[in-house]
Amino acid sequence: AAKVRSRRQRWDVRPSEMAVKTRNPIRAIVDGMKLTPNPEKAMIALSIGDPTVFGNLPTDDSVHQALKQAVESQRYNGYAPSIGYQKSREAVANFYNSPLAPLEAKDVVLTSGCSQAIELCINVLSNPGDNILIPCPGFSLYKTVAVAVGVNVKLYNLLPKQSWEVDLEHLESLIDEKTSCLVLTNPSNPCGSVYSKEHLQGILKLASKHCLPILADEIYGDMVFPGCTFHSLATLSSDVPILSCGGLAKRWLVPGWRMGWILIHDRNNVFGSEIREGLVKLTQVILGACTLVQGALESILLNTPQHFYHSTTSFLKANSEICFKELSTVPGLTPVMPSGAMYIMVGIDIDHFPGFENDVDFTERMVMEQSVFCLPTTVFDYPNYFRIVVTVPEEMMLEACARIRQFCQHHYRPHSQDSSELDQ
Amino acid sequence: AAKVRSRRQRWDVRPSEMAVKTRNPIRAIVDGMKLTPNPEKAMIALSIGDPTVFGNLPTDDSVHQALKQAVESQRYNGYAPSIGYQKSREAVANFYNSPLAPLEAKDVVLTSGCSQAIELCINVLSNPGDNILIPCPGFSLYKTVAVAVGVNVKLYNLLPKQSWEVDLEHLESLIDEKTSCLVLTNPSNPCGSVYSKEHLQGILKLASKHCLPILADEIYGDMVFPGCTFHSLATLSSDVPILSCGGLAKRWLVPGWRMGWILIHDRNNVFGSEIREGLVKLTQVILGACTLVQGALESILLNTPQHFYHSTTSFLKANSEICFKELSTVPGLTPVMPSGAMYIMVGIDIDHFPGFENDVDFTERMVMEQSVFCLPTTVFDYPNYFRIVVTVPEEMMLEACARIRQFCQHHYRPHSQDSSELDQ
Ligand SMILES: Cc1ncc(COP(=O)(O)O)c(C=O)c1O
Ligand SMILES: Cc1ncc(COP(=O)(O)O)c(C=O)c1O
Repeated sequence: AAKVRSRRQRWDVRPSEMAVKTRNPIRAIVDGMKLTPNPEKAMIALSIGDPTVFGNLPTDDSVHQALKQAVESQRYNGYAPSIGYQKSREAVANFYNSPLAPLEAKDVVLTSGCSQAIELCINVLSNPGDNILIPCPGFSLYKTVAVAVGVNVKLYNLLPKQSWEVDLEHLESLIDEKTSCLVLTNPSNPCGSVYSKEHLQGILKLASKHCLPILADEIYGDMVFPGCTFHSLATLSSDVPILSCGGLAKRWLVPGWRMGWILIHDRNNVFGSEIREGLVKLTQVILGACTLVQGALESILLNTPQHFYHSTTSFLKANSEICFKELSTVPGLTPVMPSGAMYIMVGIDIDHFPGFENDVDFTERMVMEQSVFCLPTTVFDYPNYFRIVVTVPEEMMLEACARIRQFCQHHYRPHSQDSSELDQ
Repeated sequence: AAKVRSRRQRWDVRPSEMAVKTRNPIRAIVDGMKLTPNPEKAMIALSIGDPTVFGNLPTDDSVHQALKQAVESQRYNGYAPSIGYQKSREAVANFYNSPLAPLEAKDVVLTSGCSQAIELCINVLSNPGDNILIPCPGFSLYKTVAVAVGVNVKLYNLLPKQSWEVDLEHLESLIDEKTSCLVLTNPSNPCGSVYSKEHLQGILKLASKHCLPILADEIYGDMVFPGCTFHSLATLSSDVPILSCGGLAKRWLVPGWRMGWILIHDRNNVFGSEIREGLVKLTQVILGACTLVQGALESILLNTPQHFYHSTTSFLKANSEICFKELSTVPGLTPVMPSGAMYIMVGIDIDHFPGFENDVDFTERMVMEQSVFCLPTTVFDYPNYFRIVVTVPEEMMLEACARIRQFCQHHYRPHSQDSSELDQ
């Protein structure tokens, strides 16, 4: 039997189970790595999913102007409704409205970043003991949020050889009566994949068959390379209820501003008023996004010029091509060419690198020897790849690729060795 | 036995228990009221805890300037660490540092409003089944947060006849081995009370005796009327571990900016690294405050002139005195003079108003007849008072008081009647 300690006798303050269970695997794994760069080479971090860090990808000037005007107007200092200003929600609805997936202000909930949008969606749909289906490899927040509140996660496989499409058979095999939602990330972090209309329709067919609502994380929506098309999931279905999460962070290159949103697509009234009200109630706890950014939102969405979006995606494509081309000829590596977002996945043929146990070990040593840090994909529950962020300046990307090549050439062994030898 | 429904057969999406349990009593009660103003009188809302709505209390120009500079610098667009920029945390630590309660950057966690600060503190200290002690009447968020995660609340009484001091005996009687923390609001919403050093020491003595950590909600700290002194709780104790929550919302009059903080006071290392790490982990879910406001924070704290703070509190004092003086002579009402924050509580001698059942009924009818809306304190779990916000322009306050007088004169009955008569 548990020993009941009285508070009255001595100090004994412990963090809650929720705090203990709230686990960000990126921090948990990266903070445990020994990341001491080679003092003779300047550090190049290809690990940070923040497009602003190198200064080469500023947001558009119109975005700054909109924010300054919001400050100057002095109209956005007070509390906004917890789901956001009506006018700002209307602006988002108009921006994403389409004949195939109509949206009005009432279908928009503004949040503190896409992260809060994801948190609210998982929390409104799931009870402890339920499970959600999440992509593997996939963005880690879904699991962090779920585990913190006792919701289980089931990982469905993405197929690297099919441009990271969903393994539909595997996905279907995971669905049970406790499954509360399917999480789909398109375009994907960490894969950079952008799904075709047909593939999305295949996923929707499964969701429809099993009556499973979808959380569509579309924070990289429209952030696809020139020549490629993004289909927002809701435009391809008229029966599956979809909560689409997005925000300013990526496409507008201002992740620190913490502006996100939930778009409620529910044409058959499956969510009904209950889920909508549930979302509203959850927003009332901490309220949502900074009012200044909310105040600037309409102007940002209306006035950001097309060439800004285009020059961002052109840059990301060019840099991805450089990286892909360079690493394709490196022994032991298998990069997968992305079509959008800002990441490229690189497979490590770990059998050919007997000096390393896994991707964590591999990337740790790459820092020590070459001062290049790529994120080991164990943080995405997917071993033996690393993820490169393609927002860095071109020269830096070239230099990093050259160093990665050097590193691999040094450690590559043409014939795979019996790994048991290493244990001796 | 519960009927297990397979997801596979039909659509059945319901909000989670957490979403259903997340209850904001202000919304739950106010949204249920029939608030139809008298068409012949302009509406006066004395209910909104937002000092910016009437335009008479703008923030200081230096605050706007700081924000504009943060935008212009283009240095605050990327992600900040989840607990905030080091420089901004340092600025908060320096601002609140005192010899009696020293603070360093490591003791500061920046949050999305004081609301998130409160949420994180309750969540890091409490498991489902624990209880927290909260003031009655008190700010509703504590209960909203607790109930959502299965933490129980126990309400300790404040004593209106002793300027809303804590009933220490009652407080002590509530403490048990499942009590995870004591929540103290000083200065208080809704009471406007500011506790003396001696009273705070009495509370600390109890906390120390029962080894109970304190969540000190000090969002109205220093926002006290000229002549009155605010003592931050941590300066009066060297053994009780205290999480002090605050933010820019009230004193700097910018609640929409969603800038809050937790100050960790733990001189005897009771919280230790575990609680600190728990807080860090909880911030990693949605990240914290907007980086632009974080970027402006140091300048705001350094450059806001003293006269700004002084003119705000002078205004609040003058308006409170008007309101108190006016309502003191209204039959059936008992206002309690505040010493800080931006509220005044007014008791309703409900026995003398046989036409009304309770404060909700009373305030609803005041809207219908006089177009004046005061918040019924049932929303604070405390019946038969109403709360007036004293940030409104002076003329409005005078007009509102005159109308309240008219309303009461009309409905007041000198001799209390047997309320059973009303049931017939
Ligand atoms: C797939 C995905 N979803 C959501 C987010 C979080 O976005 P935000 O910064 O707006 O919270 C990220 C950030 O990296 C992401 O990669
Ligand atoms: C006592 C108290 N604490 C906290 C808050 C919330 O502050 P914020 O707007 O910074 O979340 C309020 C707001 O009214 C309050 O009255």
